[in-house]
Amino acid sequence: MIHNFNAGPSILPKEVFEQASAAILNFDNTGLSILEFGHRTPEFTAVMEEARSLVKELMQLNDDHEVLFLHGCASTQFMQVPMNLLDSKESAAYTDTDIWGHKAITEAKLFGKVDVVASSKEKNYSYIPKDFAVPNDSKYLHITTNNTIYGTQWQTIPKTSVSLVADMSSDIFSRVLDFNAFDLIYAGAQKNMGPAGVNLVVVNKNILGKVKRVIPTIMDYRNHIKEGSMLNTPPVFAVYVCLLTLRWLKASGGVGAIEKKNIEKAALLYNEIDNNDLFTGNVAKEDRSKMNVCFVMKDPSLEKEFLQYAKSRNIAGIAGHRTTGGFRASIYNAMPLSSVQVLADTMRSFSALHKA
Amino acid sequence: MIHNFNAGPSILPKEVFEQASAAILNFDNTGLSILEFGHRTPEFTAVMEEARSLVKELMQLNDDHEVLFLHGCASTQFMQVPMNLLDSKESAAYTDTDIWGHKAITEAKLFGKVDVVASSKEKNYSYIPKDFAVPNDSKYLHITTNNTIYGTQWQTIPKTSVSLVADMSSDIFSRVLDFNAFDLIYAGAQKNMGPAGVNLVVVNKNILGKVKRVIPTIMDYRNHIKEGSMLNTPPVFAVYVCLLTLRWLKASGGVGAIEKKNIEKAALLYNEIDNNDLFTGNVAKEDRSKMNVCFVMKDPSLEKEFLQYAKSRNIAGIAGHRTTGGFRASIYNAMPLSSVQVLADTMRSFSALHKA
Repeated sequence: MIHNFNAGPSILPKEVFEQASAAILNFDNTGLSILEFGHRTPEFTAVMEEARSLVKELMQLNDDHEVLFLHGCASTQFMQVPMNLLDSKESAAYTDTDIWGHKAITEAKLFGKVDVVASSKEKNYSYIPKDFAVPNDSKYLHITTNNTIYGTQWQTIPKTSVSLVADMSSDIFSRVLDFNAFDLIYAGAQKNMGPAGVNLVVVNKNILGKVKRVIPTIMDYRNHIKEGSMLNTPPVFAVYVCLLTLRWLKASGGVGAIEKKNIEKAALLYNEIDNNDLFTGNVAKEDRSKMNVCFVMKDPSLEKEFLQYAKSRNIAGIAGHRTTGGFRASIYNAMPLSSVQVLADTMRSFSALHKA
Repeated sequence: MIHNFNAGPSILPKEVFEQASAAILNFDNTGLSILEFGHRTPEFTAVMEEARSLVKELMQLNDDHEVLFLHGCASTQFMQVPMNLLDSKESAAYTDTDIWGHKAITEAKLFGKVDVVASSKEKNYSYIPKDFAVPNDSKYLHITTNNTIYGTQWQTIPKTSVSLVADMSSDIFSRVLDFNAFDLIYAGAQKNMGPAGVNLVVVNKNILGKVKRVIPTIMDYRNHIKEGSMLNTPPVFAVYVCLLTLRWLKASGGVGAIEKKNIEKAALLYNEIDNNDLFTGNVAKEDRSKMNVCFVMKDPSLEKEFLQYAKSRNIAGIAGHRTTGGFRASIYNAMPLSSVQVLADTMRSFSALHKA
């Protein structure tokens, strides 16, 4: 068995793989593959409706919040969010806490004014800014709740009088939050939800339709809401795999239950990092991500050797992001505690080898 | 065995389903699922490169033409094409030969001026316009080469002095064309290529970068070209299935060989329509599509009964589009001649029943 710590696309539950594989040969006992299945059939319409309704249930959303599954990944939303929410003379508040938040800022500037109200860029994104003010006339405040590349996470969601918009790509469904406090949440599926190629968008319908610009049909959230997330051919298979994962999440006890497991997994790994002489964390302890655990070796010349050693123990995907180096172990919802234990044990035995 | 005549998502080769299903459990002998596989790994980079290069080979593209696999479906391209090619004061020529071409016109109008140079709308899209002029100062001429809903197809690609842009969603890889004559070709994968959720875009790189507007990062074809179609996380699984289909197409003899089979399949079915007293075609004979065969019953009150009768013979997906009614049998590349024969036989035996 391979322990897959890839940051995304990344591990999904084993039963999801099995069910998805089977549905490619025979979907829902129809004798047809899910890959050749028309999206306007009663069978697929039921898939879409169950997926949307499970999101509402698992996130405990109120009726103002609509659930959409849209093509693309978070990079599409960097553009689509300001296109729908920000007029050219208005201003939005953004936080710069990772490459992804930074990219969201770049795109928002094409549509209106951007106030970068908080940034940890000057310290290589190693912490989450705490005290910052959001101008009252901001159209919204944008945060990236978990920072996949650097391994930080907003432990507390900032309280603000303006609309709250969040990129939750890498920690969606991993912890209980007051999701109704957000007016817009988006998340590329490829971490905690499904395959790459579909975005979850949760939007308070009351904030839409306020901008003056003409929005291309496919980019206007209102059109997707009106058509029940079936404005155009949706990414059928990707939505189906999301449904399988959502069913698994519900059967596992929901977001609260998975959060407890995530806390346990993260504690195990950070504990090893803090107590192992060879390794060290590189972000502020209070801001550590429970999804992406980043660390380096005190002696960087050993990193290549450790990577090989881990590989020999069937540990995959722990090399840091191509822009940062070091290590990153992504321990998303589907990652079992036992695999995290294997990684911690491997760090310990590697350390013992080097002391011997 | 079910004979799947769905218009899209639609039938793919049986071996593609088998290989895709297997790769969800174990991709390329890595012990990991293709669904949890990082897109920047050497293994997936090889998938993307092979897929792009097979497209170049099968379409015999010259080096000016770049091949991209982008998120979304053709509806995304309706917007992305004019965003990249048409300045606000410039004019583009569009042909209105189907609901899809009509939608492309609607989106193009958001970006510049649109000349509808030819339309068959007034005759319910039942033919392809033949004689029309394209103004010399048009930025490009847009056509929809095959009209999925109404069952017409451009048998001859119009010769024009301006750039040629085509939506080939429903007949890509089905027939030999001089693909280098097009400056931009796009196609949602879900007919002849793969699962819904990925677009093939073939673009002559020399036509890009001429518009004055600022294009959002993810919408600018040049950014995708620069990053080898890996600007952001691509729809990994969808691209992989496209690769499997492209390999199958090459092993089947390429586009020329499949075109011969497509001609044979279409002739078989149209022959039955023309010679069966109960049925009749509803588009101009010379414009009939070899991909989507549309027909009605002379006595419409029999349609429901025929649909049931066909269903009892394991024929699926022949109901016409929700906006047109009647019947539509989609006989894409992967549809075997034997299944088309089953449909023709079913039409004949239904007819015999009613004569008895």
